[in-house]
Amino acid sequence: MSHRPSARQLDQMRSVSFERGYAHHAEGSCLIRMGNTHVLCTATLEERVPPWMKGTGSGWLTAEYGMLPRSTTDRMRREATAGKQSGRTQEIQRLIGRSLRAALDLKKLGERQITIDCDVIQADGGTRTASITGGWIALKDCIDWMVARDMVEASALKTPIAAISCGIYKGEAVLDLDYPEDSDAEVDCNFVMTGEQALVEVQGSAEGQVFSKAQFDEMYALAEKGCRELVSLQQMSG
Amino acid sequence: MSHRPSARQLDQMRSVSFERGYAHHAEGSCLIRMGNTHVLCTATLEERVPPWMKGTGSGWLTAEYGMLPRSTTDRMRREATAGKQSGRTQEIQRLIGRSLRAALDLKKLGERQITIDCDVIQADGGTRTASITGGWIALKDCIDWMVARDMVEASALKTPIAAISCGIYKGEAVLDLDYPEDSDAEVDCNFVMTGEQALVEVQGSAEGQVFSKAQFDEMYALAEKGCRELVSLQQMSG
Amino acid sequence: MSHRPSARQLDQMRSVSFERGYAHHAEGSCLIRMGNTHVLCTATLEERVPPWMKGTGSGWLTAEYGMLPRSTTDRMRREATAGKQSGRTQEIQRLIGRSLRAALDLKKLGERQITIDCDVIQADGGTRTASITGGWIALKDCIDWMVARDMVEASALKTPIAAISCGIYKGEAVLDLDYPEDSDAEVDCNFVMTGEQALVEVQGSAEGQVFSKAQFDEMYALAEKGCRELVSLQQMSG
Amino acid sequence: MSHRPSARQLDQMRSVSFERGYAHHAEGSCLIRMGNTHVLCTATLEERVPPWMKGTGSGWLTAEYGMLPRSTTDRMRREATAGKQSGRTQEIQRLIGRSLRAALDLKKLGERQITIDCDVIQADGGTRTASITGGWIALKDCIDWMVARDMVEASALKTPIAAISCGIYKGEAVLDLDYPEDSDAEVDCNFVMTGEQALVEVQGSAEGQVFSKAQFDEMYALAEKGCRELVSLQQMSG
Amino acid sequence: MSHRPSARQLDQMRSVSFERGYAHHAEGSCLIRMGNTHVLCTATLEERVPPWMKGTGSGWLTAEYGMLPRSTTDRMRREATAGKQSGRTQEIQRLIGRSLRAALDLKKLGERQITIDCDVIQADGGTRTASITGGWIALKDCIDWMVARDMVEASALKTPIAAISCGIYKGEAVLDLDYPEDSDAEVDCNFVMTGEQALVEVQGSAEGQVFSKAQFDEMYALAEKGCRELVSLQQMSG
Amino acid sequence: MSHRPSARQLDQMRSVSFERGYAHHAEGSCLIRMGNTHVLCTATLEERVPPWMKGTGSGWLTAEYGMLPRSTTDRMRREATAGKQSGRTQEIQRLIGRSLRAALDLKKLGERQITIDCDVIQADGGTRTASITGGWIALKDCIDWMVARDMVEASALKTPIAAISCGIYKGEAVLDLDYPEDSDAEVDCNFVMTGEQALVEVQGSAEGQVFSKAQFDEMYALAEKGCRELVSLQQMSG
Repeated sequence: MSHRPSARQLDQMRSVSFERGYAHHAEGSCLIRMGNTHVLCTATLEERVPPWMKGTGSGWLTAEYGMLPRSTTDRMRREATAGKQSGRTQEIQRLIGRSLRAALDLKKLGERQITIDCDVIQADGGTRTASITGGWIALKDCIDWMVARDMVEASALKTPIAAISCGIYKGEAVLDLDYPEDSDAEVDCNFVMTGEQALVEVQGSAEGQVFSKAQFDEMYALAEKGCRELVSLQQMSG
Repeated sequence: MSHRPSARQLDQMRSVSFERGYAHHAEGSCLIRMGNTHVLCTATLEERVPPWMKGTGSGWLTAEYGMLPRSTTDRMRREATAGKQSGRTQEIQRLIGRSLRAALDLKKLGERQITIDCDVIQADGGTRTASITGGWIALKDCIDWMVARDMVEASALKTPIAAISCGIYKGEAVLDLDYPEDSDAEVDCNFVMTGEQALVEVQGSAEGQVFSKAQFDEMYALAEKGCRELVSLQQMSG
Repeated sequence: MSHRPSARQLDQMRSVSFERGYAHHAEGSCLIRMGNTHVLCTATLEERVPPWMKGTGSGWLTAEYGMLPRSTTDRMRREATAGKQSGRTQEIQRLIGRSLRAALDLKKLGERQITIDCDVIQADGGTRTASITGGWIALKDCIDWMVARDMVEASALKTPIAAISCGIYKGEAVLDLDYPEDSDAEVDCNFVMTGEQALVEVQGSAEGQVFSKAQFDEMYALAEKGCRELVSLQQMSG
Repeated sequence: MSHRPSARQLDQMRSVSFERGYAHHAEGSCLIRMGNTHVLCTATLEERVPPWMKGTGSGWLTAEYGMLPRSTTDRMRREATAGKQSGRTQEIQRLIGRSLRAALDLKKLGERQITIDCDVIQADGGTRTASITGGWIALKDCIDWMVARDMVEASALKTPIAAISCGIYKGEAVLDLDYPEDSDAEVDCNFVMTGEQALVEVQGSAEGQVFSKAQFDEMYALAEKGCRELVSLQQMSG
Repeated sequence: MSHRPSARQLDQMRSVSFERGYAHHAEGSCLIRMGNTHVLCTATLEERVPPWMKGTGSGWLTAEYGMLPRSTTDRMRREATAGKQSGRTQEIQRLIGRSLRAALDLKKLGERQITIDCDVIQADGGTRTASITGGWIALKDCIDWMVARDMVEASALKTPIAAISCGIYKGEAVLDLDYPEDSDAEVDCNFVMTGEQALVEVQGSAEGQVFSKAQFDEMYALAEKGCRELVSLQQMSG
Repeated sequence: MSHRPSARQLDQMRSVSFERGYAHHAEGSCLIRMGNTHVLCTATLEERVPPWMKGTGSGWLTAEYGMLPRSTTDRMRREATAGKQSGRTQEIQRLIGRSLRAALDLKKLGERQITIDCDVIQADGGTRTASITGGWIALKDCIDWMVARDMVEASALKTPIAAISCGIYKGEAVLDLDYPEDSDAEVDCNFVMTGEQALVEVQGSAEGQVFSKAQFDEMYALAEKGCRELVSLQQMSG
């Protein structure tokens, strides 16, 4: 039996669902639920690129991230009121952007920009990885929308992308930390992988206790399993 | 037959639903849907008041409002990125706050603050009035939560509050403008009323064409009907 | 005898004066005094329009509002120091702008922008309505300045605009609240009307006590009388 | 005969007037007019000091400066809209503050702060020096107000302070530059002096052409004459 | 022979030097030079902790990062002028802070805060890892300064910390990327390790090309070698 | 014998050195050391001018100033974190800009902009004057760089510029205040002069005690001697 607060097995993800087309106005959208973590991801297509890309013939993908004030146990101050995005927010949206750009052949996109907005409706750990996994669905639907209008070839989307967190919790490697585990974990690692389980991003942090290469490798193995499952769920959700 | 784009009667509201308890962490919450306008309203209780109220023995209610970037047809710039809330946002959240304070006996609340967050998930006109009507449900549930914990008397909540917009559209007074009507209306009026149909707020603006007192009175009559229906739906939703 | 702190009759406005041409550099300007409320209104003409209006052939009018730090009993923090305009300031300048746009035929203006600046030199209640009434004079003089230079037809100015506040004070409807009344009033309503007493804007707020339609109608009647007097004074001041 | 655009003599100041008590709410106030330069100066007394002075038993004086948007030939952007004060504004208000602190015995003031607000109603050159000269009147009236209430001894005000600009214009030293001269002058010097013509501040800048010590001395002599006249006008204006 | 632009071996770091005590005012400081990357690191001790740590008996370490405007080939806009720190800057300073906190026993520090400032004087790739390696020297000297004053036990510093970047460049894993390599690398990984080669932070990003676990392991092996050398240089530099 | 804390003679400057070419990427650079005040000055050339200069055929020079957080005895808050530059910073960079523009024939520069960045590595009084003196060296090297590329004539640089502070310290005029003197001085004057000892800028402030014209003249004489020495050192440093 597992010692995880949720009684999950060490290598067991939370239940995952994708609600596609949640936002009527967007070119692609998905409400991803991983347990009690719910993130609304939308894809917006615009016929423009950032100034530094003009004339390159290539497109761009960028991401933004936010949390509703009462998505968390205690109310968080609205960043629009604070007048700026926190360092954490910026770090997360940069991560989402880099991760999902790895899914795209930007040349084939043409001089267009896709913006992935990830807004956390409810938070219970793992919001950044859920944003990437759900954001990919929004991106996929946006590309499909474009393909249906002969704006782009389907091959502009090169690969699925999925992300999951792992950690060392009470001395053992576990998959898909929820908030109670996240608060207590000694180590926290986020992995972003392609459909072929190649690495896109790895971010590991010691939180109070350093870790060995062997522990890293254990977490990697769990993440590979998790990402494989997520990609498979992405494929089936269509 | 009506000339409204939605084919509704002149005095017909859109269908309304309240999904209570939508946000697990909040003391009260409600996802209100008025047609395609969906607003998530949460109530947060805090054991503190603004500095200027300290020692008065009285409580406070404040409201904040936001729109998800892709709640609209075209993506709106995130206010957290822009670094400030627009004048429109501030105007709306001040209106919501004043309206819902009229529901409360602030003395009976004690030195506590309730924050009503209204976040527009999807917009199709009337987001500010939906925020007030749905925000009242979140407030009610928050007060019930407090009553259950012996923190406050039920009488701290004095009255229901509901709000609706009316307008002059193609020369006729209509109830509950949706976005296509709102864009085209000559006059736009928002009414906030108590359960006894007393007025809390009235805001009328000529948009391109000025209006007569008689037209105002017609809109008032529609609003009274609409608010009566909304209050009745609020009561039944519990 | 009246119970008003100023001993005015219930339907009696404060004494009003317009000092035209107060600001030498402006295309139109007016220092309006309504009792101890003094607002300097200037009109600035620029040969440009906001980006979203370019190529429409139509013009625009916008307004800005500010208070000198010691226009009030206690010193107010300078908004330039605070780094942003308050919600109240933005709400007021949006109201002034909408109100005065109703005076103009924007098509006839051509692709030009008029900015109305309203700066409160001294405040004793009713600064937003005084800004509108005085701002109209500045606008009128600006249009006359343009007509004299064959830049526009006189008919670009369609109608006078005047504004006044009413309230329920100690249970009775009164005209033109000064600061002591404003602080104590149960209800506060601002009315903006054309020279033909058509409505441009109505904004009524319960301040601690809700109000009936009958009370609203009483305030409306007072406002109509007040705006008629103000328009007549505007005409005579030339 | 002079070559100055205004036809003034080289050592001739513009006509000066002080309108005391212009702002009803302030503890001291003065509308100073130097030709077409008009600045409203107010003094605000507060029973607090900046954090770093608490417990020292000493008081503080600070100054703020602003220009109404249409005080100038072309409209200036409102600093509250821009979201910050310009470098020029900050430089000027620091100068006003340092200059007027030289008038005060801060120890005798007790732990209180006086804020001098200088708002330019109309600008025609020399707004910073007019702010200092007029600000001193507001300060004087504030101290008198305090003396009348037994809050402070009259000796807390040690000396009058006056300020004037000089310049090298078409090769000659001139007193009290107006805007046309200021735009064209090769050198611009501001002098702040006490009632005994001791120096408080000197700020000289080459504008396109450097200057000699002899030229500086000529400007100094003019400034001494000017400040002596201003102090004498300050004394008579009471 | 290597294909690296610098002709270095695949596993060869740039030459490293530490200039201790560079900043006279700081409790600890070090100018680290890794090839042409020069970073000034200072440690500041303050007898206070962030509000959320008060009363815990524990201390804190935080870090800030900046680049001089002309530390780079093209001038970068000064963040103080831009009015905010970029996402990249915030990400880096959060990384430095987490990394160096792993060196400290915060309980033993007592309720004090150490701030590590890392300012890039000249940039040629690897500024974040140089900041960590050099920042540790500044931290060490700060702790020694405290030990000399009996403020803390030497054991408050638990371990050396060093950091290095690796990458996949032209298909091969290389150690310590300089700017020309960094711009061209397919993958970029930063490793932060303790003196015992335990992991503190791992951050790997695909830049245009994803990577395998085997490639990650190759980079890890290089990083371990590099960090071991850096720790040894840190020990010898005292 | 002198009563100066440093035991320097009243007319004795601190030792000065110029380290040219300190910043490899810049078109011109200089680390100036005046005693323990160290400022890194860089010159950046850009093929653009501010919008208001476009089409004039003339160039521009601007300056920016910053202090590293631990350049001072107590750590200063980073202005990038504070979100804005202080009034003092803006005042100093405006002074540096005006001073160095006096060295240039902007017409001969062509439509280009030179930015002088002055970053204080270590502060011990006189950072603004050191920035000007050292900034001139960076400017000179930038012009030489341009001359070598046939972009400009050598005569675009009209004159050397040097700057020094003087003060009244314990009743006596002294040259080149260091921090202990600066904190205690009754009067503080900064002088900026050309190679021919013509004045570019004079800024004198009473700090607690006003000063006479005779005292000003004494300080002027010291400054003239100091600037003559600095210019001579500038010439020799090449």
